[in-house]
Amino acid sequence: MHIIKNPSSEKWSDLLKRPTQSLENIESKVNEIFKEVSSKGEQALLKYTQQFDGISLPNLNVSPQEIGEAKNLVPEELQQAIQQAKENITKFHAAQKTGKINVETQKGVQCWQEKRPIQKVGLYIPGGSAPLFSTILMLAIPANLAGCQEIVLCSPPNKEGKLDPAILYTANLCGVTKIFKVGGIQAIAGMTFGTESIPKVYKIFGPGNQFVTVAKQLATKYDVAIDMPAGPSELLVFADETAKTNFVASDLLSQAEHGADSQVILVSTSEKMLQEVKEEVKKQLESLPRKQIATKAIQNFKLILMNTEKSALALINEYAPEHFIVVSKNEDFFIDGIKNAGSVFIGNYTPESAGDYASGTNHTLPTNGFAKQYSGVNLDSFLKSMTFQKIDATGIKNLGKTIELMAEAEGLHAHKNAVSLRLKSLE
Amino acid sequence: MHIIKNPSSEKWSDLLKRPTQSLENIESKVNEIFKEVSSKGEQALLKYTQQFDGISLPNLNVSPQEIGEAKNLVPEELQQAIQQAKENITKFHAAQKTGKINVETQKGVQCWQEKRPIQKVGLYIPGGSAPLFSTILMLAIPANLAGCQEIVLCSPPNKEGKLDPAILYTANLCGVTKIFKVGGIQAIAGMTFGTESIPKVYKIFGPGNQFVTVAKQLATKYDVAIDMPAGPSELLVFADETAKTNFVASDLLSQAEHGADSQVILVSTSEKMLQEVKEEVKKQLESLPRKQIATKAIQNFKLILMNTEKSALALINEYAPEHFIVVSKNEDFFIDGIKNAGSVFIGNYTPESAGDYASGTNHTLPTNGFAKQYSGVNLDSFLKSMTFQKIDATGIKNLGKTIELMAEAEGLHAHKNAVSLRLKSLE
Repeated sequence: MHIIKNPSSEKWSDLLKRPTQSLENIESKVNEIFKEVSSKGEQALLKYTQQFDGISLPNLNVSPQEIGEAKNLVPEELQQAIQQAKENITKFHAAQKTGKINVETQKGVQCWQEKRPIQKVGLYIPGGSAPLFSTILMLAIPANLAGCQEIVLCSPPNKEGKLDPAILYTANLCGVTKIFKVGGIQAIAGMTFGTESIPKVYKIFGPGNQFVTVAKQLATKYDVAIDMPAGPSELLVFADETAKTNFVASDLLSQAEHGADSQVILVSTSEKMLQEVKEEVKKQLESLPRKQIATKAIQNFKLILMNTEKSALALINEYAPEHFIVVSKNEDFFIDGIKNAGSVFIGNYTPESAGDYASGTNHTLPTNGFAKQYSGVNLDSFLKSMTFQKIDATGIKNLGKTIELMAEAEGLHAHKNAVSLRLKSLE
Repeated sequence: MHIIKNPSSEKWSDLLKRPTQSLENIESKVNEIFKEVSSKGEQALLKYTQQFDGISLPNLNVSPQEIGEAKNLVPEELQQAIQQAKENITKFHAAQKTGKINVETQKGVQCWQEKRPIQKVGLYIPGGSAPLFSTILMLAIPANLAGCQEIVLCSPPNKEGKLDPAILYTANLCGVTKIFKVGGIQAIAGMTFGTESIPKVYKIFGPGNQFVTVAKQLATKYDVAIDMPAGPSELLVFADETAKTNFVASDLLSQAEHGADSQVILVSTSEKMLQEVKEEVKKQLESLPRKQIATKAIQNFKLILMNTEKSALALINEYAPEHFIVVSKNEDFFIDGIKNAGSVFIGNYTPESAGDYASGTNHTLPTNGFAKQYSGVNLDSFLKSMTFQKIDATGIKNLGKTIELMAEAEGLHAHKNAVSLRLKSLE
């Protein structure tokens, strides 16, 4: 945690480098489990659930009784909060619907584009010390709005063979069609191949540890798509002297508590701001329950002083942060100029937590610099666009010669012939 | 080439299975070339260009003189055809632009989504017996409309160390910013790592043989995105008795001439139609210049009789064809009901060639059943969507409690604290 002053642009690449994850030693284990699930199905899933989650289950199903009970086990206040979040997320994602795009490119040549749902999707929700029900909101709501027919959710059972009530409550609220008690590599393999009870899905979404990450990568070799490549979560804050130090520090720490490998960067044009935030972070860190994790992540905390807003923006675009908070008197300069970021949070009253939970935007976002070329999860992630065309006799007469000439120049005579036959029939 | 009558749905999966490509024996070669290009840069590209393309080049650049000459070498008639195609493709892709989506999800909580261009993209155009300039139209036009800053094109040089004039003419016409004479694995590696002259790109588009396919897969391990996984091209035609037999046969053959591994399927509710098309295909095949290739592909030609339109549609959705031609008195039934297809061609006067070249739709489409979850290339392929949010004091007061409750239930106290501090400051 030290301040770096005006690094020259040749140094940015090294300065902003994410720690490389070494995943190769995991690959053979993941391969082995995939092979076993592919050949033995459900039996293999139950075996690995016993091995990794320490619980022997008769099957992977969640009973209607368990779902019924969940509603009673989630505090009323939390239910209301989840419903409020659902409402906002629904509003924002419903607004992303695009209609049919219809263009008559030439007289008689009608072309259109329509988006249709991916029929079967799989959502992975990690287990661990706390139930990540917020990710169910972020994935199941747009899947449901998109019209996906089958929305499968897998999450690892606890030692009692149960899923957390908040997971079951939220899944049920958001239209998940099937819930299974299975986690880790074996869950991804189950959704990839399909088993006696789990449907084979076409696309898998959701976060996870390095085992899940490698399993999702491997799934793509078996004709399954995934939401995006995953890496540790990141936050970059740009704060000038109009930012409130304690707010900035609290945002940096909320990122740091995610995990020891979380990336936290503060960029400023004010050295005073950097100094003050540094002190404030130390202070706030003391009272955090997850202090141990946050302290580790804060060890890599970078505070970068930049001479000008222009060079600061250039550096931020080079880094391509997953989360980008900007508190600046010139916020429009940053909003207009940001080219690479997953989600942007503007002003003193917009903590990252808002987007993580309830403002309406999605929290499944590109990490590891992938904001340069990937979108965060949005409504379109659950749809695919298809094109249609209908040409009439006038249309093929208008367009035919063009196609014939191009097909011939590419040496594709049957392509040309398909047009010539039609033109001849109309003579 | 024989007729399969009313296969039961348990048999569809086997019947419609694509031949598996064995790419594993290529992987080590691709890995080797990637490593060398990563460490030696341009020098390695020149070495492999000599080895694979049989030409020793001083550098990979196309001179301004070569681009200038190209215009004179492309026949005027073909130039006009390319310009007409460009106009239609531009119209259709420009119509796909989506505006800013702005939603105030709660009072004081402003969320919006905007699409911004992927800054650097790479287009790969294969070499071979004929120049595939049509693919340049399909990739460079939307890249340009999207606003990509750097549009890099790589294509292998011929034995004289040149690129075909039609390639240069089209690239120049469609706003490609840099053209390089390099092909195959080494071109993909060059765009993945960047070299002395080739910029590192964020996403690679374009078709290619199995070496290019494996190279694009490998590129994704080095933080580069690709348009979609590739496989041999496919056409499925549904034709009832309203279809013209010779047109249907010509469409099937235009697909078959692509390569010996092309997939061609005809589905009908009329056995007479299947018989007649079978005969017509044999007849037309005789006069094709690419008869040898097409004959091989036609060996796997499947003609499938289905009892009802409903079962035919279900089978087609299970197959998820790249190209789907439908000629039926009930075309609306198929248009409304098709769930999985890359591009749909409707009626007797809509050959696949139209979409391959000039109607306006894109010809870079998902093969191998990927139409179940992938879109064909479209304007959005060159953009990524980013979200923004701005919350004011009223907004955080409205939303704060919800976030606090959810963060606490997930055990993320620093997330909660980032909100609590702000709420407290407003008391």
